[in-house]
Amino acid sequence: MQTISENKCYGGIQGVYSHRSDACACDMTFGLFLPKEAADEPVPVLWYLSGLTCTHENAMVKAGAQAWAADHGIALVFPDTSPRGEGVANDEAYDLGQGAGFYVNATEAPWTTHFRMWDYLAEELPDLVTATFAVDEDRQAITGHSMGGHGALTLAMRLPGRFRSVSAFAPIANPTQSDWGRKQFTAYLGADESTWAAHDATLLMRRLGFDGPVLIDQGSKDQFLDLLKPEALAQAMMERRQNGLVRMQPGYDHSYFFVSTFMADHMAFHAEALFQD
Amino acid sequence: MQTISENKCYGGIQGVYSHRSDACACDMTFGLFLPKEAADEPVPVLWYLSGLTCTHENAMVKAGAQAWAADHGIALVFPDTSPRGEGVANDEAYDLGQGAGFYVNATEAPWTTHFRMWDYLAEELPDLVTATFAVDEDRQAITGHSMGGHGALTLAMRLPGRFRSVSAFAPIANPTQSDWGRKQFTAYLGADESTWAAHDATLLMRRLGFDGPVLIDQGSKDQFLDLLKPEALAQAMMERRQNGLVRMQPGYDHSYFFVSTFMADHMAFHAEALFQD
Repeated sequence: MQTISENKCYGGIQGVYSHRSDACACDMTFGLFLPKEAADEPVPVLWYLSGLTCTHENAMVKAGAQAWAADHGIALVFPDTSPRGEGVANDEAYDLGQGAGFYVNATEAPWTTHFRMWDYLAEELPDLVTATFAVDEDRQAITGHSMGGHGALTLAMRLPGRFRSVSAFAPIANPTQSDWGRKQFTAYLGADESTWAAHDATLLMRRLGFDGPVLIDQGSKDQFLDLLKPEALAQAMMERRQNGLVRMQPGYDHSYFFVSTFMADHMAFHAEALFQD
Repeated sequence: MQTISENKCYGGIQGVYSHRSDACACDMTFGLFLPKEAADEPVPVLWYLSGLTCTHENAMVKAGAQAWAADHGIALVFPDTSPRGEGVANDEAYDLGQGAGFYVNATEAPWTTHFRMWDYLAEELPDLVTATFAVDEDRQAITGHSMGGHGALTLAMRLPGRFRSVSAFAPIANPTQSDWGRKQFTAYLGADESTWAAHDATLLMRRLGFDGPVLIDQGSKDQFLDLLKPEALAQAMMERRQNGLVRMQPGYDHSYFFVSTFMADHMAFHAEALFQD
Protein backbone atom coordinates (compact mmCIF):
# COMPACT_ATOMS: atom_id res chain seq x y z
CA MET A 1 0.00 0.00 0.00
CA GLN A 2 1.23 3.44 -0.89
CA THR A 3 0.42 6.74 0.77
CA ILE A 4 -0.59 9.32 -1.84
CA SER A 5 -1.32 12.12 0.64
CA GLU A 6 -2.22 12.78 4.24
CA ASN A 7 -3.74 16.10 5.38
CA LYS A 8 -4.69 17.02 8.89
CA CYS A 9 -8.42 17.66 8.94
CA TYR A 10 -10.78 18.36 11.88
CA GLY A 11 -8.18 17.07 14.30
CA GLY A 12 -7.80 13.79 12.40
CA ILE A 13 -6.14 12.73 9.14
CA GLN A 14 -7.63 12.71 5.65
CA GLY A 15 -5.46 10.23 3.78
CA VAL A 16 -5.40 8.93 0.21
CA TYR A 17 -3.84 5.52 -0.42
CA SER A 18 -3.32 3.23 -3.40
CA HIS A 19 -2.81 -0.50 -3.44
CA ARG A 20 -2.68 -3.43 -5.79
CA SER A 21 -6.15 -4.99 -5.98
CA ASP A 22 -6.46 -8.70 -6.68
CA ALA A 23 -10.21 -8.42 -7.18
CA CYS A 24 -9.87 -5.70 -9.84
CA ALA A 25 -6.45 -6.77 -11.14
CA CYS A 26 -5.19 -3.20 -11.13
CA ASP A 27 -4.06 -0.50 -8.74
CA MET A 28 -6.93 1.06 -6.79
CA THR A 29 -7.05 4.32 -4.85
CA PHE A 30 -9.21 5.17 -1.85
CA GLY A 31 -9.65 7.99 0.66
CA LEU A 32 -9.76 7.38 4.40
CA PHE A 33 -10.61 9.88 7.11
CA LEU A 34 -9.47 8.84 10.57
CA PRO A 35 -10.77 10.96 13.47
CA LYS A 36 -8.35 11.81 16.25
CA GLU A 37 -9.81 9.05 18.46
CA ALA A 38 -8.21 6.50 16.10
CA ALA A 39 -4.84 7.39 17.61
CA ASP A 40 -5.96 5.66 20.82
CA GLU A 41 -8.29 2.85 19.79
CA PRO A 42 -10.16 1.37 16.84
CA VAL A 43 -13.09 3.56 15.79
CA PRO A 44 -16.36 2.77 14.00
CA VAL A 45 -16.31 3.23 10.24
CA LEU A 46 -18.79 4.55 7.67
CA TRP A 47 -18.30 3.52 4.04
CA TYR A 48 -19.28 6.16 1.46
CA LEU A 49 -19.86 4.87 -2.07
CA SER A 50 -19.90 7.47 -4.83
CA GLY A 51 -21.90 7.92 -7.98
CA LEU A 52 -21.32 7.83 -11.73
CA THR A 53 -18.16 9.58 -12.99
CA CYS A 54 -16.78 10.01 -9.47
CA THR A 55 -13.40 8.88 -8.20
CA HIS A 56 -12.45 8.44 -4.53
CA GLU A 57 -11.97 12.19 -4.43
CA ASN A 58 -15.33 13.84 -5.15
CA ALA A 59 -17.16 13.08 -1.92
CA MET A 60 -13.94 13.42 0.04
CA VAL A 61 -13.72 17.09 -0.91
CA LYS A 62 -17.35 18.02 -1.59
CA ALA A 63 -19.68 16.14 0.76
CA GLY A 64 -18.59 17.87 3.96
CA ALA A 65 -18.67 14.56 5.83
CA GLN A 66 -15.47 14.96 7.84
CA ALA A 67 -16.92 17.72 10.06
CA TRP A 68 -19.57 15.40 11.42
CA ALA A 69 -17.42 12.26 11.37
CA ALA A 70 -14.94 14.10 13.58
CA ASP A 71 -17.75 15.18 15.91
CA HIS A 72 -18.84 11.59 16.38
CA GLY A 73 -15.41 9.94 16.21
CA ILE A 74 -16.19 7.88 13.11
CA ALA A 75 -13.80 6.90 10.28
CA LEU A 76 -14.86 7.38 6.65
CA VAL A 77 -13.77 5.32 3.65
CA PHE A 78 -14.17 6.75 0.14
CA PRO A 79 -13.55 3.96 -2.42
CA ASP A 80 -13.26 4.53 -6.15
CA THR A 81 -16.25 3.68 -8.36
CA SER A 82 -14.50 1.30 -10.76
CA PRO A 83 -11.17 -0.16 -11.78
CA ARG A 84 -9.06 2.27 -13.78
CA GLY A 85 -5.96 2.43 -15.93
CA GLU A 86 -4.72 1.99 -19.47
CA GLY A 87 -5.25 -1.74 -19.65
CA VAL A 88 -8.77 -1.54 -18.20
CA ALA A 89 -11.76 -1.79 -20.53
CA ASN A 90 -13.78 1.37 -21.00
CA ASP A 91 -16.64 2.92 -22.95
CA GLU A 92 -17.04 6.43 -24.23
CA ALA A 93 -20.36 6.82 -22.41
CA TYR A 94 -20.14 8.39 -18.96
CA ASP A 95 -22.33 5.66 -17.50
CA LEU A 96 -20.43 2.53 -18.54
CA GLY A 97 -16.89 1.35 -17.86
CA GLN A 98 -14.41 3.40 -15.88
CA GLY A 99 -16.21 5.57 -13.32
CA ALA A 100 -19.32 3.40 -13.63
CA GLY A 101 -18.60 0.02 -12.04
CA PHE A 102 -22.13 -0.31 -10.61
CA TYR A 103 -20.77 -2.42 -7.74
CA VAL A 104 -21.09 -5.79 -9.49
CA ASN A 105 -18.76 -8.60 -10.56
CA ALA A 106 -18.87 -8.57 -14.36
CA THR A 107 -19.36 -11.90 -16.10
CA GLU A 108 -19.30 -10.60 -19.66
CA ALA A 109 -16.45 -9.62 -22.00
CA PRO A 110 -14.65 -7.23 -22.08
CA TRP A 111 -15.43 -6.42 -18.43
CA THR A 112 -14.69 -9.67 -16.59
CA THR A 113 -10.97 -9.14 -16.00
CA HIS A 114 -11.19 -5.95 -13.96
CA PHE A 115 -14.80 -5.03 -13.18
CA ARG A 116 -15.21 -6.90 -9.90
CA MET A 117 -16.28 -4.06 -7.63
CA TRP A 118 -18.57 -6.31 -5.59
CA ASP A 119 -15.69 -8.50 -4.44
CA TYR A 120 -13.50 -5.47 -4.00
CA LEU A 121 -15.96 -3.81 -1.61
CA ALA A 122 -17.43 -6.90 0.03
CA GLU A 123 -14.05 -8.47 0.82
CA GLU A 124 -10.77 -7.07 -0.36
CA LEU A 125 -10.89 -3.42 0.68
CA PRO A 126 -12.58 -4.07 4.07
CA ASP A 127 -9.88 -6.67 4.82
CA LEU A 128 -7.14 -4.22 3.90
CA VAL A 129 -8.64 -1.28 5.82
CA THR A 130 -9.39 -3.19 9.00
CA ALA A 131 -5.96 -4.88 8.96
CA THR A 132 -4.05 -1.64 8.34
CA PHE A 133 -5.89 1.11 10.21
CA ALA A 134 -7.47 1.57 13.63
CA VAL A 135 -11.02 0.86 12.51
CA ASP A 136 -13.35 -1.55 14.28
CA GLU A 137 -14.66 -4.23 11.93
CA ASP A 138 -17.54 -4.94 14.31
CA ARG A 139 -18.88 -1.41 13.95
CA GLN A 140 -19.42 -0.67 10.28
CA ALA A 141 -22.11 1.30 8.46
CA ILE A 142 -22.54 2.23 4.81
CA THR A 143 -23.97 5.04 2.73
CA GLY A 144 -23.71 6.32 -0.81
CA HIS A 145 -25.00 8.73 -3.43
CA SER A 146 -26.86 7.79 -6.63
CA MET A 147 -25.01 4.73 -8.09
CA GLY A 148 -23.25 4.64 -4.72
CA GLY A 149 -26.60 4.55 -2.92
CA HIS A 150 -27.43 1.51 -5.03
CA GLY A 151 -24.11 -0.03 -4.00
CA ALA A 152 -24.62 0.74 -0.32
CA LEU A 153 -28.12 -0.73 -0.21
CA THR A 154 -27.27 -3.89 -2.12
CA LEU A 155 -24.11 -4.58 -0.10
CA ALA A 156 -25.94 -3.94 3.17
CA MET A 157 -28.80 -6.30 2.38
CA ARG A 158 -26.67 -9.09 0.92
CA LEU A 159 -24.04 -9.08 3.68
CA PRO A 160 -26.23 -9.54 6.77
CA GLY A 161 -24.38 -8.75 9.99
CA ARG A 162 -21.74 -6.69 8.25
CA PHE A 163 -23.32 -3.24 8.62
CA ARG A 164 -25.29 -1.90 11.54
CA SER A 165 -27.08 0.76 9.48
CA VAL A 166 -27.42 1.82 5.87
CA SER A 167 -28.40 5.12 4.27
CA ALA A 168 -28.48 6.56 0.78
CA PHE A 169 -28.72 9.91 -0.95
CA ALA A 170 -30.83 9.74 -4.11
CA PRO A 171 -29.99 6.08 -4.76
CA ILE A 172 -30.57 4.26 -8.03
CA ALA A 173 -33.30 2.35 -6.27
CA ASN A 174 -34.69 0.00 -8.88
CA PRO A 175 -32.05 -0.42 -11.61
CA THR A 176 -33.63 -3.44 -13.28
CA GLN A 177 -36.45 -1.09 -14.32
CA SER A 178 -34.29 1.92 -15.24
CA ASP A 179 -31.95 3.02 -18.02
CA TRP A 180 -29.48 3.48 -15.17
CA GLY A 181 -29.24 -0.25 -14.63
CA ARG A 182 -30.59 -2.17 -17.62
CA LYS A 183 -27.84 -0.91 -19.91
CA GLN A 184 -25.07 -1.64 -17.41
CA PHE A 185 -26.42 -4.98 -16.19
CA THR A 186 -26.74 -6.13 -19.81
CA ALA A 187 -23.13 -5.16 -20.42
CA TYR A 188 -21.65 -6.47 -17.19
CA LEU A 189 -23.94 -9.39 -16.33
CA GLY A 190 -25.46 -10.41 -19.67
CA ALA A 191 -28.95 -10.59 -21.06
CA ASP A 192 -30.32 -13.11 -18.52
CA GLU A 193 -32.23 -10.78 -16.22
CA SER A 194 -32.45 -13.34 -13.42
CA THR A 195 -28.82 -12.50 -12.56
CA TRP A 196 -29.72 -8.83 -12.15
CA ALA A 197 -32.02 -9.27 -9.17
CA ALA A 198 -29.13 -9.57 -6.72
CA HIS A 199 -28.19 -5.99 -7.61
CA ASP A 200 -31.53 -4.21 -7.31
CA ALA A 201 -32.26 -2.57 -3.96
CA THR A 202 -36.02 -2.69 -4.41
CA LEU A 203 -36.01 -6.41 -5.25
CA LEU A 204 -33.63 -7.14 -2.38
CA MET A 205 -35.81 -5.16 -0.01
CA ARG A 206 -38.77 -7.32 -0.96
CA ARG A 207 -36.79 -10.55 -0.61
CA LEU A 208 -34.32 -9.88 2.22
CA GLY A 209 -34.75 -6.49 3.88
CA PHE A 210 -32.12 -5.17 6.24
CA ASP A 211 -31.59 -6.09 9.88
CA GLY A 212 -31.15 -2.53 11.12
CA PRO A 213 -32.29 1.01 10.34
CA VAL A 214 -32.46 2.40 6.80
CA LEU A 215 -32.46 6.11 5.89
CA ILE A 216 -33.15 7.34 2.35
CA ASP A 217 -33.06 11.01 1.30
CA GLN A 218 -34.26 12.15 -2.11
CA GLY A 219 -34.53 15.67 -3.55
CA SER A 220 -37.84 16.57 -5.17
CA LYS A 221 -36.15 18.61 -7.91
CA ASP A 222 -33.63 15.89 -8.74
CA GLN A 223 -33.10 16.01 -12.50
CA PHE A 224 -32.74 12.20 -12.54
CA LEU A 225 -35.87 11.25 -10.58
CA ASP A 226 -37.24 9.16 -13.44
CA LEU A 227 -34.07 7.06 -13.44
CA LEU A 228 -33.80 6.71 -9.67
CA LYS A 229 -37.31 5.40 -8.91
CA PRO A 230 -37.46 6.09 -5.17
CA GLU A 231 -41.20 5.26 -5.23
CA ALA A 232 -40.41 1.60 -5.90
CA LEU A 233 -38.03 1.35 -2.96
CA ALA A 234 -40.34 3.29 -0.65
CA GLN A 235 -43.19 0.96 -1.48
CA ALA A 236 -41.03 -2.11 -0.88
CA MET A 237 -39.79 -0.74 2.45
CA MET A 238 -43.30 -0.05 3.67
CA GLU A 239 -44.63 -3.39 2.45
CA ARG A 240 -41.84 -5.17 4.31
CA ARG A 241 -42.34 -3.00 7.44
CA GLN A 242 -38.64 -2.26 7.17
CA ASN A 243 -37.20 -0.28 10.10
CA GLY A 244 -36.38 3.00 8.41
CA LEU A 245 -37.54 6.12 6.66
CA VAL A 246 -37.66 7.68 3.22
CA ARG A 247 -37.62 11.45 3.06
CA MET A 248 -38.58 13.60 0.06
CA GLN A 249 -36.69 16.87 0.45
CA PRO A 250 -38.53 19.72 -1.32
CA GLY A 251 -36.51 21.68 -3.86
CA TYR A 252 -33.24 19.74 -3.69
CA ASP A 253 -31.53 18.37 -6.80
CA HIS A 254 -28.97 15.60 -7.44
CA SER A 255 -25.85 17.59 -6.60
CA TYR A 256 -23.38 17.53 -3.74
CA PHE A 257 -25.19 20.63 -2.45
CA PHE A 258 -28.04 18.23 -1.68
CA VAL A 259 -25.74 15.59 -0.22
CA SER A 260 -23.83 17.99 2.00
CA THR A 261 -27.04 19.56 3.27
CA PHE A 262 -28.22 16.28 4.79
CA MET A 263 -24.84 14.78 5.65
CA ALA A 264 -25.11 15.79 9.32
CA ASP A 265 -28.42 13.91 9.60
CA HIS A 266 -26.96 10.78 8.02
CA MET A 267 -23.91 10.88 10.25
CA ALA A 268 -26.06 11.22 13.38
CA PHE A 269 -28.24 8.36 12.13
CA HIS A 270 -25.23 6.07 11.69
CA ALA A 271 -23.60 7.22 14.93
CA GLU A 272 -26.65 6.10 16.87
CA ALA A 273 -26.31 2.60 15.42
CA LEU A 274 -22.53 2.45 15.62
CA PHE A 275 -22.26 3.50 19.26
CA GLN A 276 -25.06 1.25 20.48
CA ASP A 277 -23.82 -1.55 22.72
CA MET B 1 -26.61 39.31 -15.29
CA GLN B 2 -27.02 35.68 -16.21
CA THR B 3 -27.90 32.75 -13.97
CA ILE B 4 -25.49 29.87 -14.57
CA SER B 5 -26.96 27.57 -11.93
CA GLU B 6 -29.00 27.56 -8.75
CA ASN B 7 -28.99 24.60 -6.34
CA LYS B 8 -30.95 24.35 -3.15
CA CYS B 9 -28.46 23.97 -0.31
CA TYR B 10 -29.03 23.92 3.48
CA GLY B 11 -32.48 25.40 3.01
CA GLY B 12 -31.12 28.30 0.92
CA ILE B 13 -29.84 28.70 -2.62
CA GLN B 14 -26.29 28.27 -3.91
CA GLY B 15 -26.25 30.26 -7.13
CA VAL B 16 -23.63 30.94 -9.79
CA TYR B 17 -24.02 34.07 -11.87
CA SER B 18 -22.07 35.81 -14.62
CA HIS B 19 -22.15 39.44 -15.65
CA ARG B 20 -20.33 41.93 -17.81
CA SER B 21 -17.73 43.68 -15.67
CA ASP B 22 -16.76 47.25 -16.51
CA ALA B 23 -13.83 47.16 -14.11
CA CYS B 24 -12.32 44.05 -15.67
CA ALA B 25 -13.65 44.64 -19.20
CA CYS B 26 -14.77 41.03 -19.53
CA ASP B 27 -17.45 38.66 -18.29
CA MET B 28 -16.99 37.67 -14.66
CA THR B 29 -18.53 34.77 -12.75
CA PHE B 30 -19.29 34.58 -9.03
CA GLY B 31 -20.97 32.24 -6.57
CA LEU B 32 -23.57 33.46 -4.07
CA PHE B 33 -25.12 31.50 -1.23
CA LEU B 34 -28.34 32.99 0.10
CA PRO B 35 -29.68 31.47 3.32
CA LYS B 36 -33.43 30.89 3.59
CA GLU B 37 -33.82 34.06 5.66
CA ALA B 38 -33.05 36.09 2.52
CA ALA B 39 -36.51 35.21 1.24
CA ASP B 40 -37.94 37.51 3.93
CA GLU B 41 -35.43 40.28 4.46
CA PRO B 42 -31.90 41.42 3.59
CA VAL B 43 -29.29 39.29 5.37
CA PRO B 44 -25.69 40.01 6.39
CA VAL B 45 -23.02 38.96 3.92
CA LEU B 46 -19.56 37.42 4.19
CA TRP B 47 -17.19 37.81 1.24
CA TYR B 48 -14.84 34.87 0.64
CA LEU B 49 -11.80 35.62 -1.52
CA SER B 50 -9.94 32.63 -2.92
CA GLY B 51 -6.30 31.84 -3.51
CA LEU B 52 -3.99 31.28 -6.47
CA THR B 53 -5.35 29.11 -9.31
CA CYS B 54 -8.89 29.15 -7.88
CA THR B 55 -12.05 30.23 -9.64
CA HIS B 56 -15.33 31.18 -7.94
CA GLU B 57 -15.98 27.46 -7.62
CA ASN B 58 -13.27 25.96 -5.40
CA ALA B 59 -14.30 27.37 -2.04
CA MET B 60 -17.95 27.12 -2.99
CA VAL B 61 -17.67 23.33 -3.19
CA LYS B 62 -14.74 22.55 -0.88
CA ALA B 63 -14.72 24.96 2.08
CA GLY B 64 -17.89 23.70 3.73
CA ALA B 65 -18.98 27.26 4.50
CA GLN B 66 -22.65 26.95 3.60
CA ALA B 67 -23.45 24.71 6.59
CA TRP B 68 -22.45 27.41 9.05
CA ALA B 69 -23.68 30.32 6.94
CA ALA B 70 -27.11 28.69 6.94
CA ASP B 71 -26.96 28.19 10.70
CA HIS B 72 -26.30 31.89 11.22
CA GLY B 73 -28.41 33.23 8.35
CA ILE B 74 -25.50 34.83 6.50
CA ALA B 75 -25.03 35.17 2.73
CA LEU B 76 -21.71 34.18 1.13
CA VAL B 77 -20.13 35.66 -2.00
CA PHE B 78 -17.42 33.71 -3.85
CA PRO B 79 -15.82 36.00 -6.47
CA ASP B 80 -13.36 34.82 -9.08
CA THR B 81 -9.64 35.52 -8.54
CA SER B 82 -8.95 37.35 -11.82
CA PRO B 83 -10.39 38.38 -15.14
CA ARG B 84 -10.55 35.50 -17.62
CA GLY B 85 -11.11 34.76 -21.28
CA GLU B 86 -9.40 34.55 -24.62
CA GLY B 87 -8.65 38.24 -24.97
CA VAL B 88 -7.31 38.53 -21.42
CA ALA B 89 -3.54 38.63 -20.84
CA ASN B 90 -2.03 35.58 -19.19
CA ASP B 91 1.23 33.96 -18.17
CA GLU B 92 2.18 30.31 -18.18
CA ALA B 93 3.17 30.48 -14.49
CA TYR B 94 0.40 29.46 -12.08
CA ASP B 95 1.02 32.55 -9.95
CA LEU B 96 0.69 35.32 -12.55
CA GLY B 97 -2.15 36.35 -14.85
CA GLN B 98 -5.43 34.45 -14.96
CA GLY B 99 -6.20 32.86 -11.59
CA ALA B 100 -3.70 35.17 -9.90
CA GLY B 101 -5.10 38.70 -9.93
CA PHE B 102 -3.72 39.50 -6.47
CA TYR B 103 -6.59 41.95 -5.85
CA VAL B 104 -4.86 45.01 -7.37
CA ASN B 105 -5.50 47.44 -10.23
CA ALA B 106 -2.67 46.80 -12.69
CA THR B 107 -0.86 49.84 -14.04
CA GLU B 108 1.60 47.98 -16.26
CA ALA B 109 1.26 46.40 -19.72
CA PRO B 110 -0.06 43.92 -20.70
CA TRP B 111 -2.23 43.78 -17.57
CA THR B 112 -3.87 47.22 -17.38
CA THR B 113 -6.87 46.52 -19.59
CA HIS B 114 -8.42 43.72 -17.54
CA PHE B 115 -6.57 43.21 -14.27
CA ARG B 116 -8.54 45.60 -12.06
CA MET B 117 -9.64 43.24 -9.30
CA TRP B 118 -9.39 45.96 -6.65
CA ASP B 119 -12.04 48.10 -8.31
CA TYR B 120 -14.07 45.01 -9.10
CA LEU B 121 -14.24 43.95 -5.46
CA ALA B 122 -14.20 47.36 -3.80
CA GLU B 123 -16.98 48.78 -5.96
CA GLU B 124 -18.48 46.97 -8.90
CA LEU B 125 -19.39 43.57 -7.51
CA PRO B 126 -20.65 44.88 -4.13
CA ASP B 127 -22.86 47.35 -5.99
CA LEU B 128 -24.24 44.59 -8.18
CA VAL B 129 -24.80 42.13 -5.34
CA THR B 130 -26.47 44.57 -2.97
CA ALA B 131 -28.67 45.97 -5.75
CA THR B 132 -29.75 42.55 -7.02
CA PHE B 133 -30.03 40.27 -4.00
CA ALA B 134 -31.45 40.48 -0.48
CA VAL B 135 -28.14 41.27 1.23
CA ASP B 136 -27.67 44.09 3.70
CA GLU B 137 -24.89 46.45 2.65
CA ASP B 138 -24.58 47.74 6.20
CA ARG B 139 -23.65 44.31 7.52
CA GLN B 140 -20.66 43.02 5.55
CA ALA B 141 -17.64 40.99 6.61
CA ILE B 142 -14.76 39.53 4.61
CA THR B 143 -12.45 36.52 4.70
CA GLY B 144 -10.15 34.68 2.35
CA HIS B 145 -7.53 31.99 1.90
CA SER B 146 -3.89 32.52 0.96
CA MET B 147 -3.89 35.16 -1.84
CA GLY B 148 -7.53 35.69 -0.88
CA GLY B 149 -6.53 36.30 2.74
CA HIS B 150 -4.22 39.02 1.42
CA GLY B 151 -7.14 40.45 -0.53
CA ALA B 152 -9.50 40.32 2.42
CA LEU B 153 -7.11 42.03 4.79
CA THR B 154 -6.09 44.79 2.38
CA LEU B 155 -9.66 45.55 1.33
CA ALA B 156 -10.82 45.58 4.95
CA MET B 157 -8.15 48.00 6.11
CA ARG B 158 -8.36 50.35 3.13
CA LEU B 159 -12.15 50.59 3.08
CA PRO B 160 -12.86 51.71 6.66
CA GLY B 161 -16.49 51.31 7.62
CA ARG B 162 -17.20 48.79 4.89
CA PHE B 163 -16.62 45.58 6.84
CA ARG B 164 -17.48 44.88 10.46
CA SER B 165 -14.93 42.05 10.79
CA VAL B 166 -12.14 40.46 8.79
CA SER B 167 -10.53 37.03 8.95
CA ALA B 168 -8.06 35.05 6.91
CA PHE B 169 -6.87 31.48 6.45
CA ALA B 170 -3.09 31.31 5.84
CA PRO B 171 -2.98 34.74 4.19
CA ILE B 172 -0.09 36.05 2.13
CA ALA B 173 0.64 38.42 4.96
CA ASN B 174 3.65 40.41 3.84
CA PRO B 175 3.83 40.19 0.04
CA THR B 176 6.33 43.02 -0.44
CA GLN B 177 8.86 40.72 1.30
CA SER B 178 7.84 37.46 -0.40
CA ASP B 179 8.17 35.77 -3.77
CA TRP B 180 4.39 35.59 -3.58
CA GLY B 181 4.10 39.34 -3.99
CA ARG B 182 7.31 40.84 -5.33
CA LYS B 183 6.98 39.03 -8.65
CA GLN B 184 3.32 39.93 -9.10
CA PHE B 185 3.59 43.53 -7.86
CA THR B 186 6.51 44.10 -10.23
CA ALA B 187 4.43 42.78 -13.11
CA TYR B 188 1.13 44.48 -12.23
CA LEU B 189 2.29 47.68 -10.46
CA GLY B 190 5.81 48.24 -11.78
CA ALA B 191 9.23 48.43 -10.19
CA ASP B 192 8.50 51.41 -7.91
CA GLU B 193 8.00 49.65 -4.61
CA SER B 194 6.30 52.62 -3.00
CA THR B 195 3.11 51.69 -4.90
CA TRP B 196 3.18 48.21 -3.39
CA ALA B 197 2.63 49.27 0.20
CA ALA B 198 -1.11 49.77 -0.29
CA HIS B 199 -1.35 46.03 -0.97
CA ASP B 200 0.62 44.58 1.93
CA ALA B 201 -1.42 43.54 4.98
CA THR B 202 1.49 43.88 7.36
CA LEU B 203 2.35 47.40 6.19
CA LEU B 204 -1.31 48.42 6.26
CA MET B 205 -1.68 47.01 9.76
CA ARG B 206 1.20 49.21 10.90
CA ARG B 207 -0.19 52.29 9.17
CA LEU B 208 -3.98 51.92 9.41
CA GLY B 209 -5.10 48.86 11.37
CA PHE B 210 -8.73 47.75 11.29
CA ASP B 211 -11.65 49.20 13.20
CA GLY B 212 -13.09 45.86 14.28
CA PRO B 213 -11.99 42.33 15.17
CA VAL B 214 -9.40 40.41 13.14
CA LEU B 215 -8.99 36.61 13.14
CA ILE B 216 -6.03 34.88 11.47
CA ASP B 217 -5.58 31.09 11.29
CA GLN B 218 -2.36 29.51 10.06
CA GLY B 219 -1.37 25.83 9.88
CA SER B 220 2.02 24.92 11.33
CA LYS B 221 2.69 22.35 8.59
CA ASP B 222 1.74 24.72 5.77
CA GLN B 223 4.11 23.96 2.88
CA PHE B 224 4.15 27.68 1.99
CA LEU B 225 4.92 29.15 5.40
CA ASP B 226 8.08 30.85 4.13
CA LEU B 227 6.06 32.68 1.49
CA LEU B 228 3.15 33.62 3.76
CA LYS B 229 5.09 35.28 6.59
CA PRO B 230 2.45 35.22 9.33
CA GLU B 231 5.10 36.29 11.85
CA ALA B 232 5.31 39.73 10.24
CA LEU B 233 1.57 40.28 10.45
CA ALA B 234 1.34 38.91 13.99
CA GLN B 235 4.05 41.28 15.12
CA ALA B 236 2.36 44.23 13.44
CA MET B 237 -1.01 43.33 15.01
CA MET B 238 0.48 43.10 18.49
CA GLU B 239 2.48 46.30 18.09
CA ARG B 240 -0.64 48.14 17.03
CA ARG B 241 -2.70 46.55 19.86
CA GLN B 242 -5.11 45.50 17.11
CA ASN B 243 -8.34 43.93 18.36
CA GLY B 244 -7.91 40.36 17.17
CA LEU B 245 -6.07 37.09 17.34
CA VAL B 246 -3.58 35.01 15.37
CA ARG B 247 -3.74 31.26 15.85
CA MET B 248 -1.07 28.74 14.86
CA GLN B 249 -2.87 25.44 14.31
CA PRO B 250 -0.51 22.50 14.90
CA GLY B 251 -0.19 19.99 12.07
CA TYR B 252 -2.43 21.67 9.49
CA ASP B 253 -1.25 22.41 5.95
CA HIS B 254 -2.35 24.85 3.23
CA SER B 255 -5.24 22.80 1.84
CA TYR B 256 -9.01 23.14 1.97
CA PHE B 257 -8.91 20.42 4.64
CA PHE B 258 -7.36 23.11 6.83
CA VAL B 259 -9.81 25.78 5.72
CA SER B 260 -12.89 23.63 6.23
CA THR B 261 -11.72 22.53 9.67
CA PHE B 262 -11.79 26.09 10.99
CA MET B 263 -14.63 27.46 8.90
CA ALA B 264 -17.16 27.07 11.70
CA ASP B 265 -14.97 29.22 13.97
CA HIS B 266 -14.62 31.94 11.36
CA MET B 267 -18.33 31.98 10.66
CA ALA B 268 -19.14 32.29 14.37
CA PHE B 269 -16.56 35.08 14.65
CA HIS B 270 -18.15 37.03 11.80
CA ALA B 271 -21.68 36.31 12.99
CA GLU B 272 -20.92 37.95 16.31
CA ALA B 273 -19.87 41.15 14.52
CA LEU B 274 -22.60 41.03 11.90
CA PHE B 275 -25.48 40.55 14.32
CA GLN B 276 -24.31 43.18 16.78
CA ASP B 277 -26.58 46.23 16.97
